[in-house]
Amino acid sequence: MCAEYGLPLELEPIIPWKREAEFTAVSPAATLPVLIEEGAPAIVGPLAAINAIEYRQASAPVAGLVPGAAAARAEMWRLLEWILFKLNDEVTRYVLEEKLGKRARGEGTPDVSALRAAKANLGEHMLYFDWILASRNWVGGGEMSLADFALAAHLSTLDYLGDMDWNAIGETRDWYARMKSRPIFRPLLADRVVGMPASATYADLDF
Amino acid sequence: MCAEYGLPLELEPIIPWKREAEFTAVSPAATLPVLIEEGAPAIVGPLAAINAIEYRQASAPVAGLVPGAAAARAEMWRLLEWILFKLNDEVTRYVLEEKLGKRARGEGTPDVSALRAAKANLGEHMLYFDWILASRNWVGGGEMSLADFALAAHLSTLDYLGDMDWNAIGETRDWYARMKSRPIFRPLLADRVVGMPASATYADLDF
Repeated sequence: MCAEYGLPLELEPIIPWKREAEFTAVSPAATLPVLIEEGAPAIVGPLAAINAIEYRQASAPVAGLVPGAAAARAEMWRLLEWILFKLNDEVTRYVLEEKLGKRARGEGTPDVSALRAAKANLGEHMLYFDWILASRNWVGGGEMSLADFALAAHLSTLDYLGDMDWNAIGETRDWYARMKSRPIFRPLLADRVVGMPASATYADLDF
Repeated sequence: MCAEYGLPLELEPIIPWKREAEFTAVSPAATLPVLIEEGAPAIVGPLAAINAIEYRQASAPVAGLVPGAAAARAEMWRLLEWILFKLNDEVTRYVLEEKLGKRARGEGTPDVSALRAAKANLGEHMLYFDWILASRNWVGGGEMSLADFALAAHLSTLDYLGDMDWNAIGETRDWYARMKSRPIFRPLLADRVVGMPASATYADLDF
């Protein structure tokens, strides 16, 4: 969102489960993201961050990532909520916890049954998004919006870990190929988790 | 929110787990709320509904439920997210499912261990909100906001079912007494679940 709006943003690595005092003083539930701007109070959570960035844009009109028309805006928020909370709660957070969280904390091997459940849930979610993308160019409708970046962020994470089966979801693959080829997406494709190589499709623009 | 803004709203009883075709055609994930206005597409989910109502107000300025100052707005969205998703996921949805959902579907008795976990989680959440309300008049800060209505909705539900221990949380009780005495809150206190009486404190303004 910041890159698309041309706002400079510097990322800092945070390990939320360490619950470091300096971090929980800012984010009491030890959740991410936290947006910090010098001389202003910290902004905690995806909704606060999205709205802070969007309101700031409102004073200097740009081709926005929140649609202007009421119906398109409602559809965008519906799907953004789906991705940030439902898809995350039923798929992404399990995969991240089992494959990365446990490993990073030295707590042993992934729970295979949790991963199996997450995979089955992912299949259901992708059926829905593939059906949606069969009838529109972007997740939220005719315009690119925050919903596209949210879904791309989740699928990119799952793809890195080898959990995306792109063959079954042609519409989603075509849409994701377009997202991937945007200049602002390129730095993400260079991201690497130390000691864990990305899947073959992760950075491939022609996957 | 609608009552506070003076927008007429008619509630319709929906039983989401029936997944009736007419309902899932509008809300594909069978989630609530759904906001329906004649001649306009349905608006699905809390974020879409909140933003639709708020944008509509933007053209006719009122004493808003979303704070105007950036820092207050960020704090409001942080806590609104906490209530709508974290408190709901860790407390309210378990209590509703075990005490009301199962019963309504004729699926037997509540899972005691789920209720015990929800109760323990509720205690932690309430410690936090009580600490917050010790230093400010409203959940989000110095102004009443959407966060107050969200928390009041959850606590009201839990109170109906006898799950609120008001003795332990004096700051929250004082705040909730103020919410309860607002005229727009009165009709909610008359709500009843068929065959399940409300707790003694539910409708009592002097609990």
